[in-house]
Amino acid sequence: MTLSLQYLGKLDGIDPLRKFRSAFALPEGIVYLDGNSLGALPVASAARVSDLITHEWGQGLVRSWSNHNWIEAPQRIGAKIARLVGARPHEVVVTDSVSVNLFKLVVAALRARASRRVVISEPGNFPTDLYVIEGAFDTLNAGHWLQLCARQSLLEAIDTETALVLLTHVHYKTAEVFDMHAITRRAHECGALVLWDLSHSAGALPIDLNGAEADLAVGCGYKYLNGGPGASSFLFVAERHQNALVSPLTGWLGHAKPFDFVDQYAPAPGVARFLCGTPSVLSLAALEVGVDLLLQADMTLVAAKSRRLGDILIELVASECGGFDLELVSPAEGHLRGSHVAFRHPHAYQIVRALIERGVIGDFRAPDVLRFGLTPLYLGYEDIGRAVFTLKEVLTKRLWDRPEYRVRATTT
Amino acid sequence: MTLSLQYLGKLDGIDPLRKFRSAFALPEGIVYLDGNSLGALPVASAARVSDLITHEWGQGLVRSWSNHNWIEAPQRIGAKIARLVGARPHEVVVTDSVSVNLFKLVVAALRARASRRVVISEPGNFPTDLYVIEGAFDTLNAGHWLQLCARQSLLEAIDTETALVLLTHVHYKTAEVFDMHAITRRAHECGALVLWDLSHSAGALPIDLNGAEADLAVGCGYKYLNGGPGASSFLFVAERHQNALVSPLTGWLGHAKPFDFVDQYAPAPGVARFLCGTPSVLSLAALEVGVDLLLQADMTLVAAKSRRLGDILIELVASECGGFDLELVSPAEGHLRGSHVAFRHPHAYQIVRALIERGVIGDFRAPDVLRFGLTPLYLGYEDIGRAVFTLKEVLTKRLWDRPEYRVRATTT
Repeated sequence: MTLSLQYLGKLDGIDPLRKFRSAFALPEGIVYLDGNSLGALPVASAARVSDLITHEWGQGLVRSWSNHNWIEAPQRIGAKIARLVGARPHEVVVTDSVSVNLFKLVVAALRARASRRVVISEPGNFPTDLYVIEGAFDTLNAGHWLQLCARQSLLEAIDTETALVLLTHVHYKTAEVFDMHAITRRAHECGALVLWDLSHSAGALPIDLNGAEADLAVGCGYKYLNGGPGASSFLFVAERHQNALVSPLTGWLGHAKPFDFVDQYAPAPGVARFLCGTPSVLSLAALEVGVDLLLQADMTLVAAKSRRLGDILIELVASECGGFDLELVSPAEGHLRGSHVAFRHPHAYQIVRALIERGVIGDFRAPDVLRFGLTPLYLGYEDIGRAVFTLKEVLTKRLWDRPEYRVRATTT
Repeated sequence: MTLSLQYLGKLDGIDPLRKFRSAFALPEGIVYLDGNSLGALPVASAARVSDLITHEWGQGLVRSWSNHNWIEAPQRIGAKIARLVGARPHEVVVTDSVSVNLFKLVVAALRARASRRVVISEPGNFPTDLYVIEGAFDTLNAGHWLQLCARQSLLEAIDTETALVLLTHVHYKTAEVFDMHAITRRAHECGALVLWDLSHSAGALPIDLNGAEADLAVGCGYKYLNGGPGASSFLFVAERHQNALVSPLTGWLGHAKPFDFVDQYAPAPGVARFLCGTPSVLSLAALEVGVDLLLQADMTLVAAKSRRLGDILIELVASECGGFDLELVSPAEGHLRGSHVAFRHPHAYQIVRALIERGVIGDFRAPDVLRFGLTPLYLGYEDIGRAVFTLKEVLTKRLWDRPEYRVRATTT
């Protein structure tokens, strides 16, 4: 067998990204394949947040809004994330959660395409995306409807009735990648807008929002950006749309002059109008450390390693775990796949539990999917080997078949 | 003069809340009168957040959503805050910002009173409250309108056309207190709902939401609850309304079964339906420390001290700073006043700058208000004396009259 642990260890030895591993505080003996659910802790984050709390909050108190530029953090970190997603610095801000930012942009887009009533997405999109569309429809109460199209028929479904196409760039379960350029082009031909959810791609795949002439996007801070649990999310509005779109969430920090405290709302120029309430400064500080770390890496190398990690995982599972009902759900071809690999198995939940108890943390997605996240900054090739050999043992010895694994706990 | 520093020091010596002062990390030589903008740092917060980052995030990784009950934090902390505001444990959750939570509740209330078109508030309410109403109106696009009534004519303005009354319990600038019982009663007589913004009262004043039969409320985590900059806010929905109201922000964590990942939205039972996206776990951890600290204090003592600190401040300013154009904006009578005291002065901004440079941190609110926050847990009577004597010096020697104080910086 060519993909021995020894061989994989050699790949690690020549991996140009290997140096980033020590920038993360990974627990001993764990293979972490769930960085696409919650990214690992950058070593520098603890000290940064500690300094923020002790020095900036404790000693600086309210003065730190200006003295430590807390007030500019949403734009400052947004400008950094812009570099990771092919946007201009003033096209991205960081604030609120993905769900809240989706609502802002869905409503803004539907109001900007007021004569159209159709939103297109796909069935099985990440639930919050679909739920937020429902909530926006109920709130607008203007006869909108949602057309869920399987991805192979999506391009043809877009027409001149389409107001908005909302898709997740990399599917949270299968890792299938949408062709951002082709779909955006088709939408524009029909006069529709596209809102890309980059939660499962930002920080792992090369993304070129401006190159694709993308209109709108959101993305998650706590996955590949390693911003910590519940990190603030980011929001992108192409410069050409910024002053035409208005957020429904007209909080004071999106006001043109928030500190004038006037009674009437006037949206700030640019993307700042999509800010709303006071942002979580602690959350932003941790996110900035994660983003800064990622900016030190060459995204071409990151994407190439992500693909290779996935190829090796798929190949190893095929060679080591054949005959155990594992069905590959993700595309085998690397260029069609995001940075995780999913398999279907009737006992997926129990298998994930058994793996976690043996130090291999992947995750389960209902009803029957095992999902393994591949985070090129801190994951090695040998880790993939260890994970698959553990999986093989779990399957061979039916270690998943224990009564306590039948009770489901919630995770995210 | 009776209110000498010596006398005030004696009051501190017999203050039953004095012991709480050492639970806060206050900078040397500072009198902090801005805890109503950003509460001071509880000593325990740094260690708690550090443990969360290093241990729960770093070592526990994604497992901590269950193993460390991150997933339950919004409800757990909500139940604690419920004790501070006279609510039942299952009537409060912590999530998102005040602005976002206002939007959820304004829209939910207007949809529950669909035949009515009027929202009542007061001119000069905290801007975000008014802005969010505007944003909700634009989104609903159903002909609603906002009636801004001066507070003396508010009760009469409420009638059977009123859908919702949205008021800030303690005015952010003047500290005037609304009679929650009387206004809620009047609104209910007319079939209207009331949404109370408790941002400037929760944690400083006794609040009895259930006693007043309140419908809806929101409040801030970073003022008197000492949750840190941009802390998550809380949201109250009276039990009787919970299953009739639906949030417009239908994010996945407000779903009845978020981890089933189904395409259709179904609101969770109870107040949990007002959760939206993944909450900031760092922010929640810091907030919980602040709330736990406050729960150790007797709120009757807190409220009584708040009032006395204000009485003394007002009396001292009158006796020491007369003849300098300072006009008391807040009610002189303690029971009509929240936990801060505001004065008007044509050079308010410069005076605040001069005070800050001398270690007395109050704040400025446009266009001409000096505001002094009184936080009974960590502020002493002698602090008030020091602040007023510094103010006297600034006024007497015109120390505020410097060119660099004419350039305004932003604070929050």
